Amino acid sequence: MRAYDIIKKKRDGFELSKSEIDFFVNGAVSGEIKDYQVSAFLMAVYFKGMTERETLDFTLAIANSGDKVKTDISGVKADKHSTGGVGDKTSLIISPVIASLGIKVVKMSGRGLGHTGGTIDKLESIKGFKTELPFDKFISIAEKTGLSIIGQTGELAPADKIFYSLRDVTATIDSIPLIASSIMGKKLTADDDVIVLDVKTGSGAFMKTLEQAEELANVMVAIGKGAGKKISAVITDMDSPLGSFIGNALEVKEAIDVLKGKVKNDLYLVSKALAVEILTLSGFGDITACEKAFDSQIESGKAFEKFNEFITEQGGDLTEILSGEYKATYTFQIKSNKSGYLGKLNAENVGVASLILGAGRTKKEDKIDYKAGIVLNKKLGDRVEKGETLATLYSSNENLFRASEEEFLKGVEIIAERVEIKSKTLKFVR
Amino acid sequence: MRAYDIIKKKRDGFELSKSEIDFFVNGAVSGEIKDYQVSAFLMAVYFKGMTERETLDFTLAIANSGDKVKTDISGVKADKHSTGGVGDKTSLIISPVIASLGIKVVKMSGRGLGHTGGTIDKLESIKGFKTELPFDKFISIAEKTGLSIIGQTGELAPADKIFYSLRDVTATIDSIPLIASSIMGKKLTADDDVIVLDVKTGSGAFMKTLEQAEELANVMVAIGKGAGKKISAVITDMDSPLGSFIGNALEVKEAIDVLKGKVKNDLYLVSKALAVEILTLSGFGDITACEKAFDSQIESGKAFEKFNEFITEQGGDLTEILSGEYKATYTFQIKSNKSGYLGKLNAENVGVASLILGAGRTKKEDKIDYKAGIVLNKKLGDRVEKGETLATLYSSNENLFRASEEEFLKGVEIIAERVEIKSKTLKFVR
Repeated sequence: MRAYDIIKKKRDGFELSKSEIDFFVNGAVSGEIKDYQVSAFLMAVYFKGMTERETLDFTLAIANSGDKVKTDISGVKADKHSTGGVGDKTSLIISPVIASLGIKVVKMSGRGLGHTGGTIDKLESIKGFKTELPFDKFISIAEKTGLSIIGQTGELAPADKIFYSLRDVTATIDSIPLIASSIMGKKLTADDDVIVLDVKTGSGAFMKTLEQAEELANVMVAIGKGAGKKISAVITDMDSPLGSFIGNALEVKEAIDVLKGKVKNDLYLVSKALAVEILTLSGFGDITACEKAFDSQIESGKAFEKFNEFITEQGGDLTEILSGEYKATYTFQIKSNKSGYLGKLNAENVGVASLILGAGRTKKEDKIDYKAGIVLNKKLGDRVEKGETLATLYSSNENLFRASEEEFLKGVEIIAERVEIKSKTLKFVR
Repeated sequence: MRAYDIIKKKRDGFELSKSEIDFFVNGAVSGEIKDYQVSAFLMAVYFKGMTERETLDFTLAIANSGDKVKTDISGVKADKHSTGGVGDKTSLIISPVIASLGIKVVKMSGRGLGHTGGTIDKLESIKGFKTELPFDKFISIAEKTGLSIIGQTGELAPADKIFYSLRDVTATIDSIPLIASSIMGKKLTADDDVIVLDVKTGSGAFMKTLEQAEELANVMVAIGKGAGKKISAVITDMDSPLGSFIGNALEVKEAIDVLKGKVKNDLYLVSKALAVEILTLSGFGDITACEKAFDSQIESGKAFEKFNEFITEQGGDLTEILSGEYKATYTFQIKSNKSGYLGKLNAENVGVASLILGAGRTKKEDKIDYKAGIVLNKKLGDRVEKGETLATLYSSNENLFRASEEEFLKGVEIIAERVEIKSKTLKFVR
């Protein structure tokens, strides 16, 4: 078998066999197949696509290219994965809710890059919280509390790292089979029974249209089913940010507010929709029963109790955040220059504005200002008077406000007529 | 400007500007643009092609990527280039004919690889002939005799080396703009006024169909014109070998026979057609006048005289070949196993059969057996009786005959009905 022939076969639009795909992925990891061959292959896939069978085999080859996480924990293990959004702290809400209902969450999570945040960064904003734990400790916490989240360790899906870094510099990112296999290849290194995908769509998401998001969701759900998982996807809106708090400690604060039942906003609804998917796939009951269970775990305080238990087990202390110390020293208010209704609040601009404040990274090495970020005083559709505050910026460096405000306002539109605000939960792919 | 954006623009089917193309080609040569980006770009070009303007700019960027040959010789300088065939020794015939008519041939030529030969290898089969000369000497011979041919020196078109070696391993060879820019990028490092292309088509050629060959010829002629050259192309048949002798010293011998007017076969006719193209483009006269001039230089002995002068100037001695010592020690006759007419004599099989005998290279480092090769006793369309000799093999190693014969016979078909043999000169692109 030769890399050349595999590239040529894909270039000419033929379906690759499982052994050809395994040969190519393994060769890329071993270095036998050179990066210039890999990038030519990826460009050929960009143009010719992959069949459902090829995409599954490619994904499994990626998942099997390195270490796999073996937890040996009894019961149903579930995971929720988001394709990345702004203000998206649903993992912090869903995980304790479902763990409090007996479903195991044993999660290795990622850091943020660019305008979207990462769960590990958010958790690290909690004083004392450890995201690096010995594997045994990680498992024992999950066994005890039903919930443990740490940063990725080991050589998980090294093939994906190779493919992703090449795609990033060769204009082969936006290919559905390559996106789907990258996400699912990493997901399938874990031994979860249930996977629910939150596929974001809109200006702040990678998939700009509902059609693209649906196509990606379909391919990923097919991969998951092909790999023997119980899986579904919820397509949710990322035209504007999710919830009102953006930034790491700020997002933990908003998650706590939802967990305590204090806030019933879009964040609450999206979290509920995703949790209900996990619960139904886990055999917890029908949709109505699962919805009731979600509400009840929040109302009863059990969800927050589970969250606190999990944070404490991993060395964290919520006192600081609960006492209101989750905002950076300096404050700046973005005012509206006219009256009307908030007709646009572009998630990507808000994400970048938050990044500028120090809440995110442009490079892997960048340090995060955990208490930096943005609180939205107005959400999409809200009435706004001239001079009213649209958002409040927080940073440890007040010199960053001007650039952040400028970026934020690029994404804002004040319009004369009130617009109807649709649900952020757009579609289910099961 | 970023390589990424250029790849993406090509991927999306947009026309690249001259500055984008220059940036990409120069970046590939400097190493700033990585080979994995270059290969992704080449695959995008494979799928999306290039406009005539882009192809010209790409070719010029390749031609300008390294050294250029500056000869400062007065008069019209002409070159003939073949896309590669079996038994193709037309350069050895055309060059002295046109040089004897006052046109300058100052040629850097290549070596053979695979089933096609190279002019430099053929010349090196002549005792004492030097293909490596100091540049001054090369020019002074050309000034004196009007004809000098040496091997390629200097860093000519380094971009082409990079692109070609990547194309070779990433299944991006067969793209018309990439083939055309590779050939013409090298050609345009020389300062010839007139270029005539011999574009081969058929089973032994890279372009299998006349349509493909014509497309390539059109693109190359457009590039040449765009670069200010007088240029035309002749599409010639390479379904079966050109002439009857294949192998290095054997081909020199056949070229001499044509130059001496002893042989008036397909080789003679193709050489004449190409030479006439050069002569008309050089302003020598109309087609009829140029045809007459070609015949007359041969009949008068002036063509061979010029050949001998050129060989002698470069240290060569034709005595050995003229006295019949141009065949390797061992001989083997391939017999026909039935009677009929030679209906197929596949050029590629004959080329590989000759390669097996030691006449060519599979790798750059391979040594050549200069007197090895094949003499065709029967040409396409000839009557053949069972047991008659189809071809005679020559090699310094008699163990190679069996494999060579087997390969040769793969390309042979003896048929019951006589077939009409068409001219090898199929089409002119001017």
